[in-house]
Amino acid sequence: MNRSYLESFLPPTRLLLGPGPSPVAPEVLTAMAGPTIGHLDPSFIGLMAEVKTMLQMAFATTNEVTFAVAGPGSLGMDACVLNLIEPGDKILIARNGVFGTRMCEVASRGGAHVIPLDFTWGTPVDPQAIDDALKAHKDVKFVGFVHAETSTGVQSDAAAIAAIAQKHGALTIMDAVTSLAGIPIKLDEWGIDAVYSGSQKCLSCPPGLSPVSFGPRAVEHVKNRKTRVLSWFLDITQVMAYWGGDKARAYHHTAPVNSLYALHESLRRLHTEGLEASLARHKAAHLQLLDGLTKLGLELLVEEPYRLPQLNAIKIPATINDAPLRSALLNDFNIEIGAGLGPLAGKIWRVGLMGEGARPEHVSRLLQSLETLMRGQWTEALSLAS
Amino acid sequence: MNRSYLESFLPPTRLLLGPGPSPVAPEVLTAMAGPTIGHLDPSFIGLMAEVKTMLQMAFATTNEVTFAVAGPGSLGMDACVLNLIEPGDKILIARNGVFGTRMCEVASRGGAHVIPLDFTWGTPVDPQAIDDALKAHKDVKFVGFVHAETSTGVQSDAAAIAAIAQKHGALTIMDAVTSLAGIPIKLDEWGIDAVYSGSQKCLSCPPGLSPVSFGPRAVEHVKNRKTRVLSWFLDITQVMAYWGGDKARAYHHTAPVNSLYALHESLRRLHTEGLEASLARHKAAHLQLLDGLTKLGLELLVEEPYRLPQLNAIKIPATINDAPLRSALLNDFNIEIGAGLGPLAGKIWRVGLMGEGARPEHVSRLLQSLETLMRGQWTEALSLAS
Repeated sequence: MNRSYLESFLPPTRLLLGPGPSPVAPEVLTAMAGPTIGHLDPSFIGLMAEVKTMLQMAFATTNEVTFAVAGPGSLGMDACVLNLIEPGDKILIARNGVFGTRMCEVASRGGAHVIPLDFTWGTPVDPQAIDDALKAHKDVKFVGFVHAETSTGVQSDAAAIAAIAQKHGALTIMDAVTSLAGIPIKLDEWGIDAVYSGSQKCLSCPPGLSPVSFGPRAVEHVKNRKTRVLSWFLDITQVMAYWGGDKARAYHHTAPVNSLYALHESLRRLHTEGLEASLARHKAAHLQLLDGLTKLGLELLVEEPYRLPQLNAIKIPATINDAPLRSALLNDFNIEIGAGLGPLAGKIWRVGLMGEGARPEHVSRLLQSLETLMRGQWTEALSLAS
Repeated sequence: MNRSYLESFLPPTRLLLGPGPSPVAPEVLTAMAGPTIGHLDPSFIGLMAEVKTMLQMAFATTNEVTFAVAGPGSLGMDACVLNLIEPGDKILIARNGVFGTRMCEVASRGGAHVIPLDFTWGTPVDPQAIDDALKAHKDVKFVGFVHAETSTGVQSDAAAIAAIAQKHGALTIMDAVTSLAGIPIKLDEWGIDAVYSGSQKCLSCPPGLSPVSFGPRAVEHVKNRKTRVLSWFLDITQVMAYWGGDKARAYHHTAPVNSLYALHESLRRLHTEGLEASLARHKAAHLQLLDGLTKLGLELLVEEPYRLPQLNAIKIPATINDAPLRSALLNDFNIEIGAGLGPLAGKIWRVGLMGEGARPEHVSRLLQSLETLMRGQWTEALSLAS
């Protein structure tokens, strides 16, 4: 381990079955290594337009303001929240895991009046509770929630939540970091106003980009703001002059050219397979995992109707030592799974079957490795790693 | 051009001699295409520590808070400005091009009381004017300036500006997007408090990352803020728990894993060549270009002492049509150069000799191509492209 920084870095080959990043197809990595071109090159402008089209398809939207923020999903959250809120605006945010909690923090820093609504970690957002809260609090402008909570493996009913928000005249902000391309998203049908996702989950692209989309009501709202968006970099009225797709684009920032090559290729692969086929593949991988886990005597944290196929929270049996098992899985089997966070630390493992990870051979390899470790056939490695 | 988005994107091979991105070495592209690993993988934590060490070397600093923001240089500007300013704080910002102007906008959105100080585009920031302004305005907390103005090709005397700011008790924020590794930077020696750069200029890495560094006074200032940093994503007190280099790191965002492979390799190449040798190579390429331009009857915009070797602003002769020539250079010679911005649009070309671009064979190729185009030997292509 005593290497010099002047040596090239040679990453190990891991099977990424944690909460992200997910496995990246060789074709996507090859695309990423294409020769860098200028971000104002006509070829690149064409690429950006195609990325936009394919993101619209993935989100099931015709929203013009659909693009990839030049940073990870967390920056996409900043982008959605900071474009919409103004100081003092009331925003109701459902908290049933790490990311709803984070959205409260982001909105609060931006000067919003945050009304948090708590649900037990591992359970979904209850639409009825949203309705009740919107009746109890007047003048709530926005409802924020997480479609697929990466920290717990729970999905919430986005359509129901969006319908209730609309009934009360509030705009919805949805975290779709883990849901996009893993469970159905119908942005226009549901009437979601602003959404952000990440490249490194079910799109199976390296981390670093955050696909976002803003609906017509959200765009209108941003245009009518009384104050400027706090971040110049994230202001969609500026960014869209750059992502607009025509040739008279205004220079804004320098797009991450090679990262967008990768996103283009991963979206191309998604739509070549077909969105429905991809969703079915995620579901099948989940059922295969569930079957194997049951045979190993392991249980999922989340009740059946709310389970995310792409993020499985597995209860850790009392007889198993969490960290040494995950270390052995990583070091001796080259498989990454995720730890629990917050109140679930030490209590669950998070197994992501996202994008390229949702394939039967990967599920089998994980199950076999888990079985070996849990039956104590790998005790030597376990003790070495611990 | 009537392609389907379902086709793979095959980028053309351009010689990038514009204002960035710069040419990327094959080794860096290969590193970027390494297998993606988890951002909490022990191997990756080691990589981040090495990136930090090599960035400290490039900036000539021992600053602990030195890392790469997970977004382009414009986000690095947001990071430096938004971490330091609080609503109502006075910041003096020198404007002698696009990026000083942008810093005013960023600081103003963040709630600062911005005092802009204007200099003619194409001329440097006058340290005496900074001194005078700091005498005239009381309680100025920060001085912001651009070390190497990418929009004009001008370098300003960072050491002198920082010394004056210190004399008046103000912290300095420096834009080093184009200067890092192209002209000398001595962060600690000069006493610069916060700096941001970009991966896609003299580091010759694909765009998408912004190396930043915060000195001890800046860190102390951030710790003693009365208000929270407006952006959760950019708050260095949060980010450093992630980039800290130890194994007990706190999850913050998902680092752009493959982009950091690329930055590691580009920094490794820089330090293998040696920073001094790299600076000398930039200088030599500039002198070669200048010699060839003189023979073509072309002149630089900037006076000799203030010229950036890595960004050459060339006055466009009245007899030449700007856009058609640049189009022909791109389409028929596969060479990208940059247009003028703002008041310099149509008046200058911007020729970047950054990182891998600063090599004699590239300068020769550009000069030969320019000569062919300017002598009208390529009129057919010129008319086709226009």
